[in-house]
Amino acid sequence: MIADLPFTLAALRQAYASGLRPEQVVEEAFRRLDATGDPGILIYTARDEALAAAGELGAYDGRPLWGIPYIAKDNIDVMGMPTTAACPDFAYDALSDAFVVAQLRAAGAICLGKANLDQFATGLVGVRSPYPVPLNAIDPAIVPGGSSSGSAVAVAHGIASFSLGTDTAGSGRVPAALNSIVGLKPTLGTLSATGVVPACRTLDTVSIFALNVSDAWDVFDVAAQFDAADAYSRNFVKKGGLSKTLPLRVAVPDARTLETFDDDIQRDHFHGDVAKLAALGCEITEIDFTPFYDVASMLYQGAWLAERVAAVGSRLTEKPETLHPTTRAILEPGLDLTAVDAFNGFYRLKALQRQCENALAGIDAICVPTIPHFVTVDDIASDPIGPNSRLGTYTNFVNLLDMCGIAVPTGPRKDGRPGSLTILAGKGEDAKVASLAALLEAGDVGATGWTRDKIRYSEPVIGEDEIGLVVCGAHMSGLPLNGELTGRAARLIRKTRTAAKYSFYALAGGPPKRPGMLVNTDTGGSIEVEVWAVPKSAIGGFLAGIPSPLCLGTVELEDGSRQKGFLCEAAGLDGATDITELGSWRTYLEKMGKTG
Amino acid sequence: MIADLPFTLAALRQAYASGLRPEQVVEEAFRRLDATGDPGILIYTARDEALAAAGELGAYDGRPLWGIPYIAKDNIDVMGMPTTAACPDFAYDALSDAFVVAQLRAAGAICLGKANLDQFATGLVGVRSPYPVPLNAIDPAIVPGGSSSGSAVAVAHGIASFSLGTDTAGSGRVPAALNSIVGLKPTLGTLSATGVVPACRTLDTVSIFALNVSDAWDVFDVAAQFDAADAYSRNFVKKGGLSKTLPLRVAVPDARTLETFDDDIQRDHFHGDVAKLAALGCEITEIDFTPFYDVASMLYQGAWLAERVAAVGSRLTEKPETLHPTTRAILEPGLDLTAVDAFNGFYRLKALQRQCENALAGIDAICVPTIPHFVTVDDIASDPIGPNSRLGTYTNFVNLLDMCGIAVPTGPRKDGRPGSLTILAGKGEDAKVASLAALLEAGDVGATGWTRDKIRYSEPVIGEDEIGLVVCGAHMSGLPLNGELTGRAARLIRKTRTAAKYSFYALAGGPPKRPGMLVNTDTGGSIEVEVWAVPKSAIGGFLAGIPSPLCLGTVELEDGSRQKGFLCEAAGLDGATDITELGSWRTYLEKMGKTG
Repeated sequence: MIADLPFTLAALRQAYASGLRPEQVVEEAFRRLDATGDPGILIYTARDEALAAAGELGAYDGRPLWGIPYIAKDNIDVMGMPTTAACPDFAYDALSDAFVVAQLRAAGAICLGKANLDQFATGLVGVRSPYPVPLNAIDPAIVPGGSSSGSAVAVAHGIASFSLGTDTAGSGRVPAALNSIVGLKPTLGTLSATGVVPACRTLDTVSIFALNVSDAWDVFDVAAQFDAADAYSRNFVKKGGLSKTLPLRVAVPDARTLETFDDDIQRDHFHGDVAKLAALGCEITEIDFTPFYDVASMLYQGAWLAERVAAVGSRLTEKPETLHPTTRAILEPGLDLTAVDAFNGFYRLKALQRQCENALAGIDAICVPTIPHFVTVDDIASDPIGPNSRLGTYTNFVNLLDMCGIAVPTGPRKDGRPGSLTILAGKGEDAKVASLAALLEAGDVGATGWTRDKIRYSEPVIGEDEIGLVVCGAHMSGLPLNGELTGRAARLIRKTRTAAKYSFYALAGGPPKRPGMLVNTDTGGSIEVEVWAVPKSAIGGFLAGIPSPLCLGTVELEDGSRQKGFLCEAAGLDGATDITELGSWRTYLEKMGKTG
Repeated sequence: MIADLPFTLAALRQAYASGLRPEQVVEEAFRRLDATGDPGILIYTARDEALAAAGELGAYDGRPLWGIPYIAKDNIDVMGMPTTAACPDFAYDALSDAFVVAQLRAAGAICLGKANLDQFATGLVGVRSPYPVPLNAIDPAIVPGGSSSGSAVAVAHGIASFSLGTDTAGSGRVPAALNSIVGLKPTLGTLSATGVVPACRTLDTVSIFALNVSDAWDVFDVAAQFDAADAYSRNFVKKGGLSKTLPLRVAVPDARTLETFDDDIQRDHFHGDVAKLAALGCEITEIDFTPFYDVASMLYQGAWLAERVAAVGSRLTEKPETLHPTTRAILEPGLDLTAVDAFNGFYRLKALQRQCENALAGIDAICVPTIPHFVTVDDIASDPIGPNSRLGTYTNFVNLLDMCGIAVPTGPRKDGRPGSLTILAGKGEDAKVASLAALLEAGDVGATGWTRDKIRYSEPVIGEDEIGLVVCGAHMSGLPLNGELTGRAARLIRKTRTAAKYSFYALAGGPPKRPGMLVNTDTGGSIEVEVWAVPKSAIGGFLAGIPSPLCLGTVELEDGSRQKGFLCEAAGLDGATDITELGSWRTYLEKMGKTG
């Protein structure tokens, strides 16, 4: 029954491979949309376009997003559809796809329509739109979250497999938390801004909502392409996709500075999530979060408000009546900001960035609640700005600090409301934060009632910016020199054995005691090894510390594949003991331990 | 005779080692200052302080700047001296040293006083000061250049060995060109801004004037220390100092966009300098310089004017009469700039940066005339702004593009005026530009009449961020795989031989034909090798391309030192030819060429 089919990528791919047609998926998507009875989710419904696109896909060809239905926030151009940014007077027909939309189209994805938003992406509540306000998918008393309101609600209802949002202050994360889905906010510049209506050009990014981390990553992987036409596009090499990267050193706000606005349930839930992180082996460090809050406060109170004014252009002064009253009220003070104010803001940000860097020395990632507490539709009706600002407590600082992040559901709180946390790290660490988040996602999948897919890890692979390295001795996991790998951000790929053609020796000297391995096709054996992925940039420092007679050469593994790895000069075997027969450095060490 | 003693670092160190006292040097320095008859060079004369400091140095201890006399631009704090920024009403007594001054003091340098400047470092002419205007050291009809006017003139007269300037638009380069000395403009953030009066905080750097490149580099090496208290301080690893880094790919403005304002002598002189670059083996690429000029025009016509307003503070509105009339006229339009203007400026700069990056793909450095033509004191009297702007043609864009650079004299033009060119490269490439500039410096040393010291190269050394790599085959200079080194920014350190303990083989297979080297203490010989310095970050990519049976291990050289380098697995010698007797891959290739 297609009505029961989860629109996760795994489920859809399987169904497509078994003969399901994308036209059926599109029809079902719109049936689900209609079933919500919520007229506020989409600003433009692209049923005809989607059915046509489904028909044009032809036979299933295995492209990564073949037949996958998605929704674009209505500040992102989709060719042939209007773009409004939730300002009807601003509307224009997009003559071409946004760069990111073009990537998705090329990968086979089908756009179902354009989603509602806080006008000009200014807001975290989702109610600042002249169109009907989308209802929160979990609890209509709570705001849907914004600015990517419709994008998040659509995914939370299982209408689309994923959706595009944008995220400047938290618009790609806050609605994810409020609707119990995943919100991936990439490193700035990783997803092109070509064809996207700007909010704050220096701080904007397209973002991805999905039903689980794995799906969000797959979409990111398709969408993240360098765009020469976008001056803010940055070319980050992808780092091997999702993989188990533990243990990590994770910073959390300390007890004094963890802010939940007296929502003790939220506080307790977060502490529970942090306990799970610790149970996974992460080293938790509590830090004073004050400098991060100081940065956060600059986003709407500082120079960057002028970017929003620049994005809206002359509309604010010439046609202010075409703006949502709250949007207008927020933007107008930006008209009074001088260029001197702007630079003074940058100076202050620079000083705060240094403080934050210092606070994060030796830290791999930050973990925060995605939102500090819940805001109801009634709250925002009585105060359109205050509760909105509070929702940005853990999101506003992120783009100002050039960090990436991902919000994931962590299961219901004690009172049933959705739990969510966000993992953050420095620019380019998108794979790291997503990998850690994948270990923590739990509980309801939006409002779908679907059971959560078992997290699909890709087999860890060696990234483009890494090199595989075969180690056979003291560098292996748990042995004395393993820190020379983990300290260089190397990742264990697999434990295996060499081809049966290596002699293995315990070398003279030490400590640490070291083995030497070299080809001996006559009497060699198969030796226990580990393959690590080492950042290419770290190999030089690693090589510098390798003493004679050890070398880095090419090692053949039992499956016939070859990787770079440790070998030993034949001339360095004076006084060495042949331990080929043991086939393993660990076995040798155990034996020595027993006899020693 | 101390009156004849050049104040180059080499000459002073030699004299100090032979018993000269720094008090004598200080006295001589002030004698030379008095001899100029120019009351405009220094704003504050620190004769007593300098003599006291000289006395406190005690016996010569070899510190890098022991007893070296220098002058600080009067927007840089020196403890116990007033700082005026050439605005008497702004003056304050510095209670502590600027961070950079503290580094110089710790290295033994002696400050002679504080130098005149264009007020608040705004200008490139050197005449925008309420104090007597310093005279150009070469020709008093020409402007001294600014804003670091006094700093440059003092060095050009040989009064001080070096001086500190600052450089936002070109203030550390233009006066160097006009006075026939060296002006080193570091990568932004490399020299701390703590204790320096800002002009444009995001674009300012302290700069160094010296009598030759080698001296400038030595001072830079002392001064370039990370300063945690300066949020704009950046921690660039130094790259091995001055060394012969040729050949480089050097871009120059093409014929259509080379701008000399009809000064054909300047144009011809520059073409002559470029011919010298080509004769050194550099590959010259002519590029369209338009995007660089477009960036340059943003400095005073765009948002950054507001930084200068921010630096001056309320003075501009509350006490405008305390400002130089020209400075005031330049700054006042900055009061009208809005924050929206500022961001629109950043967007335009970002787009231009991308254009410039594209223009520089595959390029190591840019070479430009330091100034497009000469400006006289009369020119500037009749138009205080236009000629000043023209002087920034080749300097204004540099800090906006986060490049480093160095201006060097290249000998007199046909009409006797000083020639100067500037080498520019991306952030962190300070050693590269200085090394190339050192090959080109020529002609008069300021107005001193001293013969130019033979350029003192440090023996090329392997930098902290590099690793030494011994190559013995196709990677050597001029052989087919050498591009795998030069393409990774590796530098040849020396040609040498191994210890007499290596067997050397021509391996089976190819092309390219490859040798294999391995320890053989019985019958091994000494093999011709080259030691290259390879960036550590590039070793991973290099290793990935090394085929079995070659390895990277440890090689012993004939002087007993050890470096990482190529070795060969003993198991990989099937079909190989022992060529140990030849002792050289080149000899083997020649022999093959003859017999083949």
